[in-house]
Amino acid sequence: MSEKVSVQDRFWNEYTELVRQTVIPYQWEALNDRVEGAAPSYAIRNFRIAAGLEEGEFGGMVFQDSDLAKWLEAVGYSLASRPDPELERIADDAIDLIGAAQLENGYLNTYFTIKEPDKKWTNLHDAHELYCAGHLIEAAVAYYRGTGKRKLLDIARRLADHIDEVFGIGPGKLRGYCGHQEIELALVKLYEATGEDRYLRLSRYFIDERGQAPNYFAEEWERRGRTSHWVQGTTSPPDLEYNQSHLPVREQTVAVGHAVRAVYMYAAMADLARLAGDERLREACGKLWKNVTEKQMYVTGGIGSTHHGEAFSFDYDLPNDTAYAETCASIGLVFFARRMLLLEARSEYADTMERALYNNVLGSMSRDGKHFFYVNPLEVWPDASVRNPGKRHVKPVRQRWFGCACCPPNVARLLSSLNEYIYTADRKRNTVYAHLYIGSEARFELDAGPVKLKMSSELPWSGKVSFEVLPESNAPAKFALALRVPGWCAGARPALTVNGKPADYRTERGYAFVEREWSQGDAVGWELPLETQLLFAHPLMRANAGKAAFQRGPLVYCLEEADNGAPLASLALAAEPNLAERFEAGPLGGAVVIEADGTAIEGAGWPEDSAPYLPLRPRVKAARLKAVPYYLWGNREPGEMAVWIRTARP
Amino acid sequence: MSEKVSVQDRFWNEYTELVRQTVIPYQWEALNDRVEGAAPSYAIRNFRIAAGLEEGEFGGMVFQDSDLAKWLEAVGYSLASRPDPELERIADDAIDLIGAAQLENGYLNTYFTIKEPDKKWTNLHDAHELYCAGHLIEAAVAYYRGTGKRKLLDIARRLADHIDEVFGIGPGKLRGYCGHQEIELALVKLYEATGEDRYLRLSRYFIDERGQAPNYFAEEWERRGRTSHWVQGTTSPPDLEYNQSHLPVREQTVAVGHAVRAVYMYAAMADLARLAGDERLREACGKLWKNVTEKQMYVTGGIGSTHHGEAFSFDYDLPNDTAYAETCASIGLVFFARRMLLLEARSEYADTMERALYNNVLGSMSRDGKHFFYVNPLEVWPDASVRNPGKRHVKPVRQRWFGCACCPPNVARLLSSLNEYIYTADRKRNTVYAHLYIGSEARFELDAGPVKLKMSSELPWSGKVSFEVLPESNAPAKFALALRVPGWCAGARPALTVNGKPADYRTERGYAFVEREWSQGDAVGWELPLETQLLFAHPLMRANAGKAAFQRGPLVYCLEEADNGAPLASLALAAEPNLAERFEAGPLGGAVVIEADGTAIEGAGWPEDSAPYLPLRPRVKAARLKAVPYYLWGNREPGEMAVWIRTARP
Repeated sequence: MSEKVSVQDRFWNEYTELVRQTVIPYQWEALNDRVEGAAPSYAIRNFRIAAGLEEGEFGGMVFQDSDLAKWLEAVGYSLASRPDPELERIADDAIDLIGAAQLENGYLNTYFTIKEPDKKWTNLHDAHELYCAGHLIEAAVAYYRGTGKRKLLDIARRLADHIDEVFGIGPGKLRGYCGHQEIELALVKLYEATGEDRYLRLSRYFIDERGQAPNYFAEEWERRGRTSHWVQGTTSPPDLEYNQSHLPVREQTVAVGHAVRAVYMYAAMADLARLAGDERLREACGKLWKNVTEKQMYVTGGIGSTHHGEAFSFDYDLPNDTAYAETCASIGLVFFARRMLLLEARSEYADTMERALYNNVLGSMSRDGKHFFYVNPLEVWPDASVRNPGKRHVKPVRQRWFGCACCPPNVARLLSSLNEYIYTADRKRNTVYAHLYIGSEARFELDAGPVKLKMSSELPWSGKVSFEVLPESNAPAKFALALRVPGWCAGARPALTVNGKPADYRTERGYAFVEREWSQGDAVGWELPLETQLLFAHPLMRANAGKAAFQRGPLVYCLEEADNGAPLASLALAAEPNLAERFEAGPLGGAVVIEADGTAIEGAGWPEDSAPYLPLRPRVKAARLKAVPYYLWGNREPGEMAVWIRTARP
Repeated sequence: MSEKVSVQDRFWNEYTELVRQTVIPYQWEALNDRVEGAAPSYAIRNFRIAAGLEEGEFGGMVFQDSDLAKWLEAVGYSLASRPDPELERIADDAIDLIGAAQLENGYLNTYFTIKEPDKKWTNLHDAHELYCAGHLIEAAVAYYRGTGKRKLLDIARRLADHIDEVFGIGPGKLRGYCGHQEIELALVKLYEATGEDRYLRLSRYFIDERGQAPNYFAEEWERRGRTSHWVQGTTSPPDLEYNQSHLPVREQTVAVGHAVRAVYMYAAMADLARLAGDERLREACGKLWKNVTEKQMYVTGGIGSTHHGEAFSFDYDLPNDTAYAETCASIGLVFFARRMLLLEARSEYADTMERALYNNVLGSMSRDGKHFFYVNPLEVWPDASVRNPGKRHVKPVRQRWFGCACCPPNVARLLSSLNEYIYTADRKRNTVYAHLYIGSEARFELDAGPVKLKMSSELPWSGKVSFEVLPESNAPAKFALALRVPGWCAGARPALTVNGKPADYRTERGYAFVEREWSQGDAVGWELPLETQLLFAHPLMRANAGKAAFQRGPLVYCLEEADNGAPLASLALAAEPNLAERFEAGPLGGAVVIEADGTAIEGAGWPEDSAPYLPLRPRVKAARLKAVPYYLWGNREPGEMAVWIRTARP
């Protein structure tokens, strides 16, 4: 990598430290089945059984191995930014255990080793073997980068080499691909870490082969006797949209199916488009990006609106109260966005990355780092979550751990690698792009020479950002600093100063370009207009017609029952809402809250014991509404929550 | 029965004739598997196989017999109001067939006779044996009343007598009850038709025993080896709320579980409360009535808001777009309402009966009488019905017939017995209650003597109603005519005239009492104020906050895409809506439509290719909204539909 960035940010370090001090240790306990009251993971036990160190049955989901891999990946990132010998020792032991579970030929998957040793690679549709391999590879690359230790990387390479022998177009090879995309982007990372072209070629094979006719999954299902890992008896043919194998990927223009699978695949497609200069792949990425972010994304950056198959439904179908918006899907959207930025720096990619990160992803974790949302709704009525089966997936309270525990370790690995999402550098064009305004120190290798930058940021509470430029050599260096103009500036032009003096700039693809010969100590001031905005949704988004949402900078806000009473549906925003904002300490740990004038329907105005429908216009009274950042919802007593609020205007 | 009523009404005869001329013949074809493109019923074939007239396997649902019974019941009602020798011949043949399928001991159920002869009465929870028996009994009573023929009544009595031998508290008897309530209300009818107390006692046994501890279904499930008729393998213990066996019925205060089961049971409870003077049962009926109609009913009279288990969810949880509101459940609510009126004439019971009948029930059938809704939503977005799995149960177009075809024959039997819902008479108090204003001729036996009444009504289009009083004898008779003051009069006092002169009246429990010595030829004019109203929902009904619905007399209205474009969510009603109404001929077959001033969000105001959320208040333009009666929705090209419309006021 041509850059090295470390996060030094008041807002974000709270969370990266939470991950380091709480989430990672807590998850280690969970992987070892030592968290009281949480469903056991079995992940470590499975590896011990596969390694012959313990007797027993495989436990957990068929993809349980990936939880340990995601944990190790998070540990790798964490050790990179902050050494921790005790944590490293624990991780090294876990890696030894993984190595002991690997077969002679490189194969590594505890489910099949323990439970169905003669069924390897026979159910790519359901069994997640390549998916687990992908997570192991990602962990290996992160751990190698974070510690310099090669053991896990070697395990991953042996596994990848084995997969390369098994899969492909040549004679005797299996012409399949995974039912859950993940290995594709992992192999790109392995290529980048090792320089070995064959991993890139293997990734490209998986992407190119997907959705070709005759469909591999349809044939595999026949070969398997029309069975499934998940249900007894014979099953219907696989739904090919579910895992995006319904069409060759370059022909896909609309996001369908399981949202996590989709964005993991799109991320790999963007990687390959860049590394191979594949124009058709780049076009497909562009179309899919537009479809997801313009038509199928919640204002919180959540994607996948239906819990049926954890999937995209269709354009503008984004109901708030039955939203799925899985945490992992938003994390995958962040992955996709970062790779789109590497393809071409356009601020819309970073806008979405920021939206998903500060809202859906950050909100999935409780302030204690021990409770997580899998589903991230935009409207909650706790009674309905209990009594209405169509809303049972919507939880009003974060859960400790999940039987299918994909989300918490995914949050951990994203937050502990947050440094990778702040900048990209275009070495040849001598340009450093700042996408996220997160305090940090960074070092880049440009053709003009090495560059060091220190960013300070008061986001998300104030829009004050500054950079100190530190060319490593003493000689002045000429390069461009490209500063993202966030979408939430809404046309207002952020003020730029260079060494204290107002400076002009040109804007291109959403970035302000500051190009000059920089000297050590040069300072850039970048003042983002940070105001509470009322957001409105696209007119075809039926769920939000006549409603507005509060946004302030990167943060989307919501109303909670704790501040506003219930039902929240009785509240409406006044035509002139007289918005106010103030920093509030207290139970939410310090945050800017928003207040607005509105009205509340008076429940008491309805006659007792009467019909529920009357020609009786509800009585309303004035009310002052209070909104808190969405990422903080559900940290007080359980109650209603709503992001979108009715407005008094039509 | 002390009354005989025949419908002579321009509005309703269109539907009763549709049932007679189209629905009944069409359903006969369906029962015989002769409807092209519709799923086969197998109902007749099953009886032929059970009778030994044909070889083959049982086909259709375990409760398929009930379809033939419901058809025969409708035929019985139809023949009562209009003889039809050809139809009667067909029905007599079907009855012969049923008789041939009855076993020596009276048992009658083709599923068990054909498929599991040694499993009779072993799965009351799932297998609907008593439910099918109940429908057969209802058919027998209706056919006997309609034709005077006893053959089906005798079959039903032999079956009921057999059931009476099998079930009860005595030694050697099965202490069970049905998983789907129906036999309870049927046995009351059999008692009323035959005067045999033992049928009333048996009904009471089923009602009294239900929900007692230890729970019969829990024990039966254990005895069955924890299996279910519906799924393979072992199952979870039965959900006792689903069929209202979670508590003894007198302790139930909140409607839970499968809505049809619930209201069929409540109807029988109301019958028994009346016939046995059971005060605790009457109290339970009152509480359940209040819960259903004040907290769990849609404005269309639909009940059972969730398709998961076709069930009630909880108080004020009435989402419009995922509504279930099954046709049969509204029909059951009409049954319940009628029996509450028999317990005590209160206009709120008739208000609800009318609401369910004119909206949810009538709207379930297409204008051609050949297509039916099972689910009756209050908001439809056709694309979502296809692409959002949580809305797949919501159909934008009526279907021809259903694999589980409970609803169409239920509509047929209700509409062909509509005459039974218009009046009740209190013989001892010499009072005739008019509940529904449906043109008709009626004859009552009061203590004061026989009374004949002719009602004329211009509902639902105009509020003009009149009665001609024809005491059968020439002598004048003193009795009270109690005229319901509909809830939709909303406090306005209908104008009464007697023999052309304005007359005063007292009102009691929602009825206007006109008490006098009547002479032949006396005429009563009753002018109901019929105006378009904007209805608002209870403040705790979150789905309808900030919305209004149009109602005009008994009819609820809706907006359709055919008249208003899409998306309907973009429309809002003006603060001063300037309502207008006019009779419109045309594709809907003649109906009063409502127009109102409003606004529409301009879709074109949104920038192309932009983020779906912007700080950009939508541009709105003036629009004239047009609403049509809900019961007519979906009779034109498929499109969006909405009952509740946003209002410009908070």
